[in-house]
Amino acid sequence: MPEAAKTLDGWYCLHDFRSIDWTSWKLASSDERESAIHEFNQIIAKWDKTEQHKQGSHALYTIVGQKADFMMMILRPTMEELNEIETEFNKSKLAEFTIPTYSYVSVVELSSYLAKGKDVETDPELQARLKPILPKWQYACFYPMDKRRQGEDNWYMLEMEDRSKLMYSHGMIGRQYAGKVRQIITGSVGFDDWEWGVTLFAHDVLQFKKLVYEMRFDEVSARYGEFGSFYVGNLLKKEAIPQFLQV
Amino acid sequence: MPEAAKTLDGWYCLHDFRSIDWTSWKLASSDERESAIHEFNQIIAKWDKTEQHKQGSHALYTIVGQKADFMMMILRPTMEELNEIETEFNKSKLAEFTIPTYSYVSVVELSSYLAKGKDVETDPELQARLKPILPKWQYACFYPMDKRRQGEDNWYMLEMEDRSKLMYSHGMIGRQYAGKVRQIITGSVGFDDWEWGVTLFAHDVLQFKKLVYEMRFDEVSARYGEFGSFYVGNLLKKEAIPQFLQV
Amino acid sequence: MPEAAKTLDGWYCLHDFRSIDWTSWKLASSDERESAIHEFNQIIAKWDKTEQHKQGSHALYTIVGQKADFMMMILRPTMEELNEIETEFNKSKLAEFTIPTYSYVSVVELSSYLAKGKDVETDPELQARLKPILPKWQYACFYPMDKRRQGEDNWYMLEMEDRSKLMYSHGMIGRQYAGKVRQIITGSVGFDDWEWGVTLFAHDVLQFKKLVYEMRFDEVSARYGEFGSFYVGNLLKKEAIPQFLQV
Amino acid sequence: MPEAAKTLDGWYCLHDFRSIDWTSWKLASSDERESAIHEFNQIIAKWDKTEQHKQGSHALYTIVGQKADFMMMILRPTMEELNEIETEFNKSKLAEFTIPTYSYVSVVELSSYLAKGKDVETDPELQARLKPILPKWQYACFYPMDKRRQGEDNWYMLEMEDRSKLMYSHGMIGRQYAGKVRQIITGSVGFDDWEWGVTLFAHDVLQFKKLVYEMRFDEVSARYGEFGSFYVGNLLKKEAIPQFLQV
Amino acid sequence: MPEAAKTLDGWYCLHDFRSIDWTSWKLASSDERESAIHEFNQIIAKWDKTEQHKQGSHALYTIVGQKADFMMMILRPTMEELNEIETEFNKSKLAEFTIPTYSYVSVVELSSYLAKGKDVETDPELQARLKPILPKWQYACFYPMDKRRQGEDNWYMLEMEDRSKLMYSHGMIGRQYAGKVRQIITGSVGFDDWEWGVTLFAHDVLQFKKLVYEMRFDEVSARYGEFGSFYVGNLLKKEAIPQFLQV
Repeated sequence: MPEAAKTLDGWYCLHDFRSIDWTSWKLASSDERESAIHEFNQIIAKWDKTEQHKQGSHALYTIVGQKADFMMMILRPTMEELNEIETEFNKSKLAEFTIPTYSYVSVVELSSYLAKGKDVETDPELQARLKPILPKWQYACFYPMDKRRQGEDNWYMLEMEDRSKLMYSHGMIGRQYAGKVRQIITGSVGFDDWEWGVTLFAHDVLQFKKLVYEMRFDEVSARYGEFGSFYVGNLLKKEAIPQFLQV
Repeated sequence: MPEAAKTLDGWYCLHDFRSIDWTSWKLASSDERESAIHEFNQIIAKWDKTEQHKQGSHALYTIVGQKADFMMMILRPTMEELNEIETEFNKSKLAEFTIPTYSYVSVVELSSYLAKGKDVETDPELQARLKPILPKWQYACFYPMDKRRQGEDNWYMLEMEDRSKLMYSHGMIGRQYAGKVRQIITGSVGFDDWEWGVTLFAHDVLQFKKLVYEMRFDEVSARYGEFGSFYVGNLLKKEAIPQFLQV
Repeated sequence: MPEAAKTLDGWYCLHDFRSIDWTSWKLASSDERESAIHEFNQIIAKWDKTEQHKQGSHALYTIVGQKADFMMMILRPTMEELNEIETEFNKSKLAEFTIPTYSYVSVVELSSYLAKGKDVETDPELQARLKPILPKWQYACFYPMDKRRQGEDNWYMLEMEDRSKLMYSHGMIGRQYAGKVRQIITGSVGFDDWEWGVTLFAHDVLQFKKLVYEMRFDEVSARYGEFGSFYVGNLLKKEAIPQFLQV
Repeated sequence: MPEAAKTLDGWYCLHDFRSIDWTSWKLASSDERESAIHEFNQIIAKWDKTEQHKQGSHALYTIVGQKADFMMMILRPTMEELNEIETEFNKSKLAEFTIPTYSYVSVVELSSYLAKGKDVETDPELQARLKPILPKWQYACFYPMDKRRQGEDNWYMLEMEDRSKLMYSHGMIGRQYAGKVRQIITGSVGFDDWEWGVTLFAHDVLQFKKLVYEMRFDEVSARYGEFGSFYVGNLLKKEAIPQFLQV
Repeated sequence: MPEAAKTLDGWYCLHDFRSIDWTSWKLASSDERESAIHEFNQIIAKWDKTEQHKQGSHALYTIVGQKADFMMMILRPTMEELNEIETEFNKSKLAEFTIPTYSYVSVVELSSYLAKGKDVETDPELQARLKPILPKWQYACFYPMDKRRQGEDNWYMLEMEDRSKLMYSHGMIGRQYAGKVRQIITGSVGFDDWEWGVTLFAHDVLQFKKLVYEMRFDEVSARYGEFGSFYVGNLLKKEAIPQFLQV
């Protein structure tokens, strides 16, 4: 039996995708709409405060295409907090005008080899990566993925050494995009339908395509990668929400 | 033809996942909501009584993400009782504000080799495992699964001896999590779309990920496991229901 | 080209699965509900009469889990009759409170080797099997299935002789359950999305699991079986309908 | 690279499957219903005229089971006409009470070898097959299909000669059903999700099962056929529409 | 690790498919409908202006069959503009009467070998292909696709040289359709669920079938192509919109 890779795990993560029911939204009175936006702003203000205290992080992006109108990505130290945040949003006025379209439950994950000779609990770099403050870059991309278990192409039957080599060269591609694409890997085995979630941030949206395309020729993706739906979108700043929702 | 493994079967099991239609729930009068919660509490009180009399068991968990808002897991000696409980809930006031999102029908199952030299009908340990009182631990995880029948990776074409060896080493992983993860295996061949349901309970939600991930490198999962959707959530105590439903 | 197995075909068969919209049902006046139940009882009375005259048969079962609330299984000599019955139900008052969730169109089918030396048109045993009066046993199970055509596991590329041997030993398993499980095989090639429908009846619901599980190790299922959704439920007697629909 | 088979293409074809929202239909006033039926009859009268002038053809069948309540199959010389007919129906009163459930866009297709030494544009037999007047036989069956491209079973990697041989013996099965089953093959590569649509007509509905089942043992289907959903139904004559819609 | 093919990327592209809720549309007052059409015309007028200034392009086609009633295809220099256009449409009056059915997010893509010895930024031919003004031809066809990664048929494990040879002969088929079919390839790795979108334009709709069918025998499609849903439709000129929406 191949040895399982060890992982370091940080904050829990909820990706929550929503579409807006624009027809109902327009039917609401302007008072109702204002109060819904106000309440949503207050929720975000709480999230901002949590982020300032480094007790969590979050990001808002509008999504291009019909899969969703916007995505909320939330990081917190516990699964309960994610559940509470989700429920608080569901009970809010704005939620009455949204339709849930997709969500993803996972936890920030690092390869344990990064921790060699370091104390995970105190090492500042590791802590920063396990409890990341999400970059407010212009574009975000999310997709879930599996490692394939199919006939000759079975990742989980490979020896640790072979997986390590493959992942090392795979990681080298990512490193070429340093400064261009920031990548948050979250593990979801036991939490959601795929094994990992990948969230990418960039200043230039084309870098998502370049990175993911280049990686597809790498054996890790070419032979062993299975991919779910891709979501791409633009940063939705708090101050731009009223205009986004203006009807 | 390979010999089928024998199974011991205990209580029947229904997993019932529901989302809440928060918009309608908020539109209801507070009297209506109170009476809905009151009636639901009465239903649970009945379930509690059944559990006290060891005539069944149940558990309530909120679910993280959009797949569902909560899960009811119900164990009973007969399929009729499951059907009655489901119908009673469907006729309740609260059900008017819920949307069914997934369900699973199965029966608690043990490998028959556990029964060697024991009288299944009277042995207290076997009886406790076949008619388990569900632990009220902080977290639960549910997923259905199949054994693969694909080309060279066909579990059902293996000889009993080979399957036993594979299952033994698979089980050893689970035993390392004793005290951390409690596992209820329910069989659903002939009852629902997958062959088994797996329900896990833990005090630390991360243990679900660790256990399922480690098992994935074991040949039984790596070559022969097919997995459905994963649901993860937090214990919903009876006394926390009013707050959960507070709008 | 392998020779196709001959089949004997009897009555046409419609499985019709429905969920109840309990919220609307409760909103209806008690007069409306009574009249809906009364009309449904009249429809069933007609079906009963047809069954008494051996011009068809039917069975009603409640279904456990969210896939459906009840199943109507109808056998008739012609496809037109099935269509008329379905349309009559759709036009009924009760149907306004139901949501169609699944249906299956097929025809009772027997292996032609059963007919060796017999006159199919007059032989009473064959006629009874081709035009079966459905047993009103406590439990029913339904699932559709295909024979696999995948790489090396291609049922339709096997010679008739090999298929016959495989089916013979497969059938031997079924025969061990005589008296415990009654099995109606209906063919649906050209009629619906799978090649066969399997309807099982039992006094003890656990026998479905035992039978289907044991068969799964048989080469016919292990290498060549592809299975759709499984539905399991409890007999719904005509006199129990008012209570089932009582709100 | 294997040579593509040439095809002769005739009329464009739209299969349009609809369910009836019986609850709304019953809620409509009898005037509204009469006027909806009257308008539908006028649309069909136009279609009849087109058919009389051999500028197109059409057929109406009720469908057994929940997949649809009825199917409209329409043949026309241009894609624009199909689009107009579809839109005209969508704008009609009756359409308000129907739910679209499936559709298929294709074009009548013949193997070009049928045209050897003939002038396609003037040959009456070829023209009759490319611009067929649909038979008003008692039963119809529709299903879409692909030729498989999977590992060793890749139809599109075979040489023309091998494909021709395989198709010839496949066609021989069809010819045994001459007079019993009439078959219209329509090509949909570039038009819809499968490569072909198959529409069968019969006086005896069991012939669909016999034909499709026998073909399944032929290598063309056994190794290379992938099949979509099957729809089966009964002829809906214009004069029977009022009764079909009577509530 | 095989070398990734380089790509040149131009304008971003949104395909937005919608169905019309004809029942609500008819229920609207004629004033409401006129004002919805008027507003939609103004939106298109803006798009026309953008196209005149070569800052983007767009096309409107009605779609045959139930998959959608019409498609809007929009090209813009930035992802933000696509998002804004989509949101503006969603907020419009007409959108209240439409149901989103499918969308696709991608970017115009060319093989980099076309750029040999040319300055991509200034070469007029390359610029015209990267920032294309969409032809207003009578018919359009859209489908998404992947290159297969399955067992022996794994495009991404092939050497660049082999892929180039295969793509060259594949491209030769397309070139035979010059003047008959215009093809816009858009890349969607990292943006949407498939790797490419293919949009075809033709004066004769049958050319779509001929081209796609001929290509299917080419090794690139036969062994390595995976295809999504196909959409086919007729040009919807701005001046024909009122008639299309006339009820």
